Amino acid sequence: MLNKQYTSMLQEKDVIFEIFQYATERAKVVGAENIYDFSLGNPSVPAPSIVNETIVQKVNTLDPLALHGYSPSFGIMETREKIAVFLNKKYGSSYKASNIFMAIGAAGALAHAFRAVTNPGDEIITFAPCFSEYKPYTAGAGLKLTIIPADIDTFQINFAAFEAQLNENTTAVLINSPNNPSGIVYSTETIKKLADILTEKSKEFGHPIYLISDEPYRDIIFEGVDAPYVANYYKNTLTCYSFSKSISLPGERIGYLAVHPDCIEADKIIEICPQISRTIGQNGAASLMQRTVADVCNYTSDLSVYETNKKILFEALKEYGYHCVEPGGTFYMFPRSLEPDSQAFCKKAMEKDLMLVPGDIFGCPGHFRIAYCVPTERVEKALPIFQELAEEYL
Amino acid sequence: MLNKQYTSMLQEKDVIFEIFQYATERAKVVGAENIYDFSLGNPSVPAPSIVNETIVQKVNTLDPLALHGYSPSFGIMETREKIAVFLNKKYGSSYKASNIFMAIGAAGALAHAFRAVTNPGDEIITFAPCFSEYKPYTAGAGLKLTIIPADIDTFQINFAAFEAQLNENTTAVLINSPNNPSGIVYSTETIKKLADILTEKSKEFGHPIYLISDEPYRDIIFEGVDAPYVANYYKNTLTCYSFSKSISLPGERIGYLAVHPDCIEADKIIEICPQISRTIGQNGAASLMQRTVADVCNYTSDLSVYETNKKILFEALKEYGYHCVEPGGTFYMFPRSLEPDSQAFCKKAMEKDLMLVPGDIFGCPGHFRIAYCVPTERVEKALPIFQELAEEYL
Repeated sequence: MLNKQYTSMLQEKDVIFEIFQYATERAKVVGAENIYDFSLGNPSVPAPSIVNETIVQKVNTLDPLALHGYSPSFGIMETREKIAVFLNKKYGSSYKASNIFMAIGAAGALAHAFRAVTNPGDEIITFAPCFSEYKPYTAGAGLKLTIIPADIDTFQINFAAFEAQLNENTTAVLINSPNNPSGIVYSTETIKKLADILTEKSKEFGHPIYLISDEPYRDIIFEGVDAPYVANYYKNTLTCYSFSKSISLPGERIGYLAVHPDCIEADKIIEICPQISRTIGQNGAASLMQRTVADVCNYTSDLSVYETNKKILFEALKEYGYHCVEPGGTFYMFPRSLEPDSQAFCKKAMEKDLMLVPGDIFGCPGHFRIAYCVPTERVEKALPIFQELAEEYL
Repeated sequence: MLNKQYTSMLQEKDVIFEIFQYATERAKVVGAENIYDFSLGNPSVPAPSIVNETIVQKVNTLDPLALHGYSPSFGIMETREKIAVFLNKKYGSSYKASNIFMAIGAAGALAHAFRAVTNPGDEIITFAPCFSEYKPYTAGAGLKLTIIPADIDTFQINFAAFEAQLNENTTAVLINSPNNPSGIVYSTETIKKLADILTEKSKEFGHPIYLISDEPYRDIIFEGVDAPYVANYYKNTLTCYSFSKSISLPGERIGYLAVHPDCIEADKIIEICPQISRTIGQNGAASLMQRTVADVCNYTSDLSVYETNKKILFEALKEYGYHCVEPGGTFYMFPRSLEPDSQAFCKKAMEKDLMLVPGDIFGCPGHFRIAYCVPTERVEKALPIFQELAEEYL
């Protein structure tokens, strides 16, 4: 018999992808230039040229047996070393290669992190608004996911609701800063307060509460924004990173898990990652890509377009009467919808060929997500539609 | 608390890899030229040059946003199409692109296949000798794995034991031909008989018993060997393939699941694969590699060395007094150990710096595996050690 869990998931398919598919179909009818698709978080700037140059150099110079051969199950040692060195230089941390596990993107890193520090039935807490895929990710590890309601005035953490929820079954807390969908960066004050609470409650409950920090947008931070490196404030932190957004390689599925060197059982957490991998499809990162990112981990794509787009869009929306907390990074914005029912609002936008994602799937109804990882010209051409939409409400 | 299941797995770590690691350490002491390492199934011939040429061509000609961007969750359509066409031409099958799901190697394909057609608690049956990783693979999907004892005279299927075991909870049967570790290829007679039993029992139990066919060694078949394409004999077949061995890309983690077009619920099986992927780490195949294999799926490495090695080794072992069923493919051989305790036997070999893997981990004690994916010269130089070892017993 086909699997019931996965069959039932078909009912609640990926909403974002459905909108994207609608946009693609619609483009065939009215022309792509008349569709304003802000549904997908797909980088709009290419990988820096050094990425492709490095791929070609590896292919042309390395022994093919070594280049394409099995990697150690933790990842290629040279890559892990270079990433540790890079992190230490950038964030003043003290990672060793043995704290790094190479994974297939942030999702792969999260899959290992969840399974390493929890047991099925445990509770994991995250904060709205949050990435819609956290539900299947944590369900796959047998976890009970609790989503703390958003503080919609700031999109920092709603600490009162969080503290009320924390309990003995909570073994991990999951954060995502810079945040998808809000674009908000947790401040040093927020991270410090979170760390204090986790330290205190770990003591009270008699077991560590691990902090799993999902950081694919870490390199997209706007000017002047207070953006602390999370692991520096709480030693029991597992950092999940992806090269998808920083060097625009989402399809190559390459990232890593970095376990704070002073994390409780740090060595064992890394040691069991290959065991986890054995049970979920031997999903180690691909060899050529591991060798490539080893050499380019200190590069980023030209990410400036995202800040440019943010400024234009944020100012315009404010002028049109939208309410939005200003993003500190990413390429997302999360304004309030102009009617309480954000699905109805997004449907209205869709009728104008403007593709937005309702906040409901991020655990935060009454809002909508704009993924402005598009050429600036597209943002500018979409403004009159945002305005027209606003005028229907205000 | 760290995960109990994965922590306990550390006790029964990958034996093969431990032997390989010992060999690597030992090589530092006595020199690599004095170590005869037959532990790992790592291809010894490079990828055909067309592979690297194709990678470079893709990198140099495709728009980097498309090249490295998110793929559809089923895999890139063009790649799925080309694979379907290739399979149909080679095996007379009638796959459509929609029957193909791109996965991270055969392990990734298996991870999806197991989860698609079973529910946790179901029984899956496989046949000794079998790949040691089937245990964690199926445990990860919550399955009860039953291993049917080997027919050690032929290493075809022990049908009497199989039929006695089949029951209502059996929802899938897993086979691996050409086989790791025996090198045996299931004959047309074996596959036909298996298909007949599965058809009959599916009727009797009132639900399909799916056949999951793990085929990473499908392209390494020796001259004159009867090697049927499994799915042609049983429509409810899910074929799991990897490019690891055929074009020597094990580290690139690229393969696919092909569902027979007439399989019961074929469309739904593929449809739920991306849902499965969401829960086990979004483990889709990397984009550049998908585009590469699309163009080279009709190529293989020069695989002839494996047959050369087989001949030399098989004849020599026979002469020295070993008993071995002659392999029909792969780069493995699975002779009987010269004492009933194959672990003790392999330890004795190891003392002579000859690295062999005891059959116990393949569900078939009393045997040992030789992975002869090494240069022919290494095989030749190892022969006197095999002989010396035999002389201690005979």
